[in-house]
Amino acid sequence: MTKKYLYTFGPGKSDGNSKMKDLLGGKGANLAEMANLGIPVPPGFTISTEVCAIYSENNQELPAWLNKDAKEGIGFIEKKMGAKFGDFKNPLLVSVRSGARVSMPGMMDTILNLGLNEETLKGLIERTGNERFAYDAYRRFIQMYSDVVLEIDRENFEHLIDSLKKSKAAKLDTDLTAEDWKNLCVKFKSLVENKLGRVFPDDPWEQLNGAIGAVFRSWNNKRAIEYRRINNIPSHWGTAVNVQAMVFGNMGDDCATGVAFTRDPSTGERRFFGEYLVNAQGEDVVAGIRTPQPINISGKKSESEKSLEEIMPKIYSELEKIYQKLEKHYRDMQDIEFTIQQGKLWMLQTRNGKRTANAAVRIATEMVKEGLISKDEALLRIEPPQLDQLLHPTFDPKAPKEAVARGLPASPGAAVGRIVFSADHALEWSEKGEKVVLVRIETSPDDIHGMNVAEGILTARGGMTSHAAVVARGMGKCCVAGCGEIQIDYSKKEFRARDKVTFREGDWLSLNGSTGEVIAGRIATVQPELTGEFGILMEWVDEIRRLKVRTNADTPRDAEVAKKFGAEGIGLCRTEHMFFEPDRIGVMREMIVADDVDARKKALKKLLPYQKGDFKGIFKVMNGLPVTVRLLDPPLHEFLPQKDSEINELAATIGITPEKLREKVSSLHEFNPMLGHRGCRLGVTYPEIYAMQTQAVMEAVCELKRDENINSLPEIEIPLVGHVNELKLLKAVCDKVAEEVISRTGVKVEYRIGTMIELVRAAVTADEIAHYADFFSFGTNDLTQTTFGLSRDDAGKFLKEYVEKHVLSGDPFVTIDQGGVGKIMQIAIEKGRMTKPDLEIGICGEHGGEAQSVIFCHQIGLNYVSCSPYRVPIARLAAAQAVLKEKGVSGSETR
Amino acid sequence: MTKKYLYTFGPGKSDGNSKMKDLLGGKGANLAEMANLGIPVPPGFTISTEVCAIYSENNQELPAWLNKDAKEGIGFIEKKMGAKFGDFKNPLLVSVRSGARVSMPGMMDTILNLGLNEETLKGLIERTGNERFAYDAYRRFIQMYSDVVLEIDRENFEHLIDSLKKSKAAKLDTDLTAEDWKNLCVKFKSLVENKLGRVFPDDPWEQLNGAIGAVFRSWNNKRAIEYRRINNIPSHWGTAVNVQAMVFGNMGDDCATGVAFTRDPSTGERRFFGEYLVNAQGEDVVAGIRTPQPINISGKKSESEKSLEEIMPKIYSELEKIYQKLEKHYRDMQDIEFTIQQGKLWMLQTRNGKRTANAAVRIATEMVKEGLISKDEALLRIEPPQLDQLLHPTFDPKAPKEAVARGLPASPGAAVGRIVFSADHALEWSEKGEKVVLVRIETSPDDIHGMNVAEGILTARGGMTSHAAVVARGMGKCCVAGCGEIQIDYSKKEFRARDKVTFREGDWLSLNGSTGEVIAGRIATVQPELTGEFGILMEWVDEIRRLKVRTNADTPRDAEVAKKFGAEGIGLCRTEHMFFEPDRIGVMREMIVADDVDARKKALKKLLPYQKGDFKGIFKVMNGLPVTVRLLDPPLHEFLPQKDSEINELAATIGITPEKLREKVSSLHEFNPMLGHRGCRLGVTYPEIYAMQTQAVMEAVCELKRDENINSLPEIEIPLVGHVNELKLLKAVCDKVAEEVISRTGVKVEYRIGTMIELVRAAVTADEIAHYADFFSFGTNDLTQTTFGLSRDDAGKFLKEYVEKHVLSGDPFVTIDQGGVGKIMQIAIEKGRMTKPDLEIGICGEHGGEAQSVIFCHQIGLNYVSCSPYRVPIARLAAAQAVLKEKGVSGSETR
Repeated sequence: MTKKYLYTFGPGKSDGNSKMKDLLGGKGANLAEMANLGIPVPPGFTISTEVCAIYSENNQELPAWLNKDAKEGIGFIEKKMGAKFGDFKNPLLVSVRSGARVSMPGMMDTILNLGLNEETLKGLIERTGNERFAYDAYRRFIQMYSDVVLEIDRENFEHLIDSLKKSKAAKLDTDLTAEDWKNLCVKFKSLVENKLGRVFPDDPWEQLNGAIGAVFRSWNNKRAIEYRRINNIPSHWGTAVNVQAMVFGNMGDDCATGVAFTRDPSTGERRFFGEYLVNAQGEDVVAGIRTPQPINISGKKSESEKSLEEIMPKIYSELEKIYQKLEKHYRDMQDIEFTIQQGKLWMLQTRNGKRTANAAVRIATEMVKEGLISKDEALLRIEPPQLDQLLHPTFDPKAPKEAVARGLPASPGAAVGRIVFSADHALEWSEKGEKVVLVRIETSPDDIHGMNVAEGILTARGGMTSHAAVVARGMGKCCVAGCGEIQIDYSKKEFRARDKVTFREGDWLSLNGSTGEVIAGRIATVQPELTGEFGILMEWVDEIRRLKVRTNADTPRDAEVAKKFGAEGIGLCRTEHMFFEPDRIGVMREMIVADDVDARKKALKKLLPYQKGDFKGIFKVMNGLPVTVRLLDPPLHEFLPQKDSEINELAATIGITPEKLREKVSSLHEFNPMLGHRGCRLGVTYPEIYAMQTQAVMEAVCELKRDENINSLPEIEIPLVGHVNELKLLKAVCDKVAEEVISRTGVKVEYRIGTMIELVRAAVTADEIAHYADFFSFGTNDLTQTTFGLSRDDAGKFLKEYVEKHVLSGDPFVTIDQGGVGKIMQIAIEKGRMTKPDLEIGICGEHGGEAQSVIFCHQIGLNYVSCSPYRVPIARLAAAQAVLKEKGVSGSETR
Repeated sequence: MTKKYLYTFGPGKSDGNSKMKDLLGGKGANLAEMANLGIPVPPGFTISTEVCAIYSENNQELPAWLNKDAKEGIGFIEKKMGAKFGDFKNPLLVSVRSGARVSMPGMMDTILNLGLNEETLKGLIERTGNERFAYDAYRRFIQMYSDVVLEIDRENFEHLIDSLKKSKAAKLDTDLTAEDWKNLCVKFKSLVENKLGRVFPDDPWEQLNGAIGAVFRSWNNKRAIEYRRINNIPSHWGTAVNVQAMVFGNMGDDCATGVAFTRDPSTGERRFFGEYLVNAQGEDVVAGIRTPQPINISGKKSESEKSLEEIMPKIYSELEKIYQKLEKHYRDMQDIEFTIQQGKLWMLQTRNGKRTANAAVRIATEMVKEGLISKDEALLRIEPPQLDQLLHPTFDPKAPKEAVARGLPASPGAAVGRIVFSADHALEWSEKGEKVVLVRIETSPDDIHGMNVAEGILTARGGMTSHAAVVARGMGKCCVAGCGEIQIDYSKKEFRARDKVTFREGDWLSLNGSTGEVIAGRIATVQPELTGEFGILMEWVDEIRRLKVRTNADTPRDAEVAKKFGAEGIGLCRTEHMFFEPDRIGVMREMIVADDVDARKKALKKLLPYQKGDFKGIFKVMNGLPVTVRLLDPPLHEFLPQKDSEINELAATIGITPEKLREKVSSLHEFNPMLGHRGCRLGVTYPEIYAMQTQAVMEAVCELKRDENINSLPEIEIPLVGHVNELKLLKAVCDKVAEEVISRTGVKVEYRIGTMIELVRAAVTADEIAHYADFFSFGTNDLTQTTFGLSRDDAGKFLKEYVEKHVLSGDPFVTIDQGGVGKIMQIAIEKGRMTKPDLEIGICGEHGGEAQSVIFCHQIGLNYVSCSPYRVPIARLAAAQAVLKEKGVSGSETR
């Protein structure tokens, strides 16, 4: 083997370093880097991510040559630790852990205490003098190995422990003796033999091989796949495997284990912040089974809590030095794990810490002030989608509310939803359009899909670094964790708060993730204020970005919100929404069932003042900024009732027979409405509709100018153009009306006429279309549907499977499919600007507010993106990041 | 004016010639050419087609400068004729006629006898000495001018004539005297004054201007637009206007008028063939009001008929020389018009004659033998769609049939349909899916839309050159004309044949256009034999063409028909049709409602032998030729019943509750089935379906090879691929099964796996897809739907309007939209062959059998087209024409 697949790390020089994440995974690369920095790290080695691919392609078997590599790696650890793998006197025990390029907490499998068997156990007892610890370690190993490698349901083992506890009337694990654990080990091993028909493997090398394979295998377990789907992580990355000497936080009271953040991951405050447990193994802290203690005095919430700073001041001070060194070295907030074994501190992990949006903004701006990072770097530190957390409403401070319980403020924000008690129900309800709050005793990686759709998460157990808290913060989702004041009964689907109030499935609940309050009912919310660090950051953003950001808004209210968020105009004002309001839908329907053009014009005349009024409201808010008004787009059947009772009622109102109306409704039925009589096709058939809409726009513009000196910049947009002749015909209709209004009112105003590019045919004939268009706006929703030949309404049934089977890397309706739809966009831009070099081109599909897509839009030369009001700041940040990427500035990975 | 808009023609040298059809129209260019050849043509001038565009853009007004040009043109005619426009002694009268680039018979307007008024009338009477003729000419002029230029309904005038006839108990026009016509002229003119509030124009120059404008205007009348739509004539071509000295065939018995063909337009036989009327104006022959006489003795069907050859032998012999000269000069069969005025022969028109497909083939091949044209030219003389006539069934000679009446065999073929009596009803019925035979007393240009949809046309009046006959031949439609043995009663919607049998609307009728027989009921038909001249022609075709032609066939029967027509393989074998057969649909449904993969596999196992049997049947027919088998494509809901009763029945059969089945049906419902869960998406979700189908194909191939030494060339085709990963995944599934079958049977066979290119995303990523494809096949139906964003099922409602409003020049589902869909195809070809330079690429959409599209496919470098069996010869011919076009060989226009 000339190619290197195995990299050692430990005291002295490591083979790897923190730049080698692609190969070593985040954990492995950072362990190597810490060792290189002289920080105490238990020695070990990393098997590279490339082996994960080899493993998959090799029918889920490890390549034979890996044995030799692993022997060398173990030899390295043995030398550093002065112990020997499989030795009955001074046995070396190791952990085997996953480690992908980005952290996927709890998604893959881990095995601890590997190397134990009846022989080496003796050595462990001898070396530690602690028989109970040794048997506890052994049974933990058997349990983990059986679960992960041998795939025996872990409930089998827990059941044996519970029986034993019951027979001994023991409550906690700590009530069990060395003898108890010893007996359990025997029972565990015979359970394995019964289940598998072969004995539990005693050979440490066999154990090691099994564990390495199992960790590679766990890259493709269901949880991991789901997590990757949600977080857009490519499946071909694979995981590395880290084999590392065991250190124990549970050998006695001079032992401990903990996790910490170099700054507060909730608020971003510059303070060392963490939790630890005395005499415990690492997973005890994360799993939330025992409630951990604060790491330092400043973190204490009550006098009864005991901080590490107080109990082990020397080690605490050593830890402080290390965290400062790490933050300075990595130039970012770190999330660290440590274990203290018999008075000695070992660092087990460091990584850039997950943080809330608030914290991200505060940390980034403060680090700039501290001189630690540049402004450019600061902007790359914020993931644009995170901003969503900052932009959504918080509880109205004036709304009456009384907390029925209080837990830990694990992830900030306000959540209002109906109670569900399982991830599956959360998904089910949310698919029906319900907003839900997920209430669990504690969460595990199996709950990811439910957490993903919930408004907020409430757990009864677990600390600030519990699974629920970490994942919720990562998702930017409100979470109240460790709320001991509630008792949950899954079987009855209810929980009681402070033993006073009972809440049942479906009841409304509000959570305040910033205070930890749990509140009954639906609490009113208010708009966020975008000031402070956020304001500073967005100023930097605007200094850098070139791409303009507009908003999609159909009402003055939406327009106002968006303007506050920094929108520089409206990129899509849908006019059909105006027809659905109760006072107008009747007239609209009258227009649709009209038999001839005169009757249609009569109805349109009644709609004109409504439309004009709507436009005036919007133009006023957007004084001086461009507003793209899209003419009628949806098929007419969307405006007609379908139910018999409604049809009868409408027929009476309009004064025609129900039969005639039913005939009309049925004549408008379409097999594929998405590909039917809509968009400019309506304009071609009924030019009088577009004429009325243009008249409403232009009269609004002229009257506002004349009466209130409002300066509107209307852009009239013809939707669904596929052939230049459609645009040519309809532009003539609109121009005629517009010129007529201008000359009638005598007010001199400018207007522009352009088109959506949302059909492939428009894109490939953009050179022809550009002759008649003042601007283009990509409708990437429809463009994606037609490029893929995939209806968004119908794709849901199989798109998930496509992602799971690695056919698609993600949902093309969320992120622009650059390889397909993106190519069509590039063709349209190139052709359009061949005809008009300065042609203004924007995008107004959902993609306009999605960060990766915004960056792509910058790269292909769009002038602006347009998105929903709440996404405007996200798009602004992404636009700035696009420029930084172009300049080659690299940020650190925060996920 | 430096640019020339007016071209004179007449004795001596003309300004134009036959090459200038684009500018002068067909009629004008040929009049000029005839004059250049020394053939007697009344002098005149042509106003070019460019003026038609100027007229349209100038708000339907003639440009002022045209007056001066027209004066010069009239001056030219005056000089040649020795008469003077508006002169009361020797007045010049002119005709004003349309003349487009291609003939559009009867679609636009004509005005005769222009220049007459009270003054010039006197001169006409004096010169001719025939007062009755002169007043008849005058009243004809007033009638035509009022109808065409002044737009007064012609019925007003006919009503006046009828009243007069009634009051005088006159039956025919010929019963009216000079005095009667004179009185009518007075009445006509006062009618005009009453209707318009101004007098009928007497100034010949005003008359001329009005007539020229009206002819230009008639380019855009409803009839002409409809005709252009059917015949794919671009609206921007415009018409020229021909102003020509009048010659009269109705001055007395030494006058006549007629039309003739240089060869028989029905059979192609080399004989001079035509009809004429003594003492008549030209339109009398065409309109079918009087039954015309045969032009020569060989054309006589009874002794009572009087041929021109007998009555005016000298003129007939002059005519013979002229027709021979013309055919030799034009090197094609000519359709000529002539008028004999007081013993002098004038030629009014020559053009390439419309002909039946049979005639076209015979004429082309015989002209090659005669040395008149080359093989290449012969091939360009046949319009590929015409072949359709030759390929469709004729009446089974063995079927019992008795004619209830017999008319003229005006256009050959066999038509079977239900009787309708108006063009509107024909359209209405055919839209409901009914086959109709249109029965009319006579047809007029207003009936075009009905003729277009009818299976055949039966008229009671009119000759072989009547409107019905000419148009039907042009359309390749069966027509029996001038069937005097039937009496039609429009009001009762019935006709009586030989006064014995009554037929009503909706009754079935069969027409034999080759014999003129009218037969009651539905007569059985038989397949045509493709021998004789047709066989020779197709041999020439195959010598030249490079594009292969395959067929779309799902059954051995279709495959056999196609092979007889020259198919070189199957380009599309749809496998789903096999599932719809009564004995299989049940198993298919069982498969669809299966809850898990095991139940699905069980049902699939039952389907396997059916599929294998089907494939064997087809492979046997196609021994040694490639067969492209498309795996399951339609959405599953298409296989399930929708009605409650059917659902209950099916549920009982399968053994599940109706509720469960209903749930399944409803879960499969799609908003846009065209963009839903179908094609390879089914394969991704249910790989076991594609596995079964591949197994069926491969077992069929291997067993046929082993047992019958049949050599199959299977091409397994994955439909609806949009992303390379879909193909990659499914190719692996199919390869695995195929290799397994090959190794199990031990028969060594080849197979290929490829994909449809029917989604835009596949086209723009064809370079990636080509890595996993042995071949591409364009599915241009779906590619057109997605490129346009237009559902074929829904487009019908507005596509017609799009064509009428000139937004689209034709239906993109009939002819490939080269500007849009064609571009996407070119991208796919370029990218696909970037990866695999020899990639085999074909097309299997409906377009594969449409001539223009086939030529395009040749041009962009496809290897083959695939079309329905009956279109195979059409595609072969078009493929040969594509090569000839490439070589720069030009054909003559036959339309």
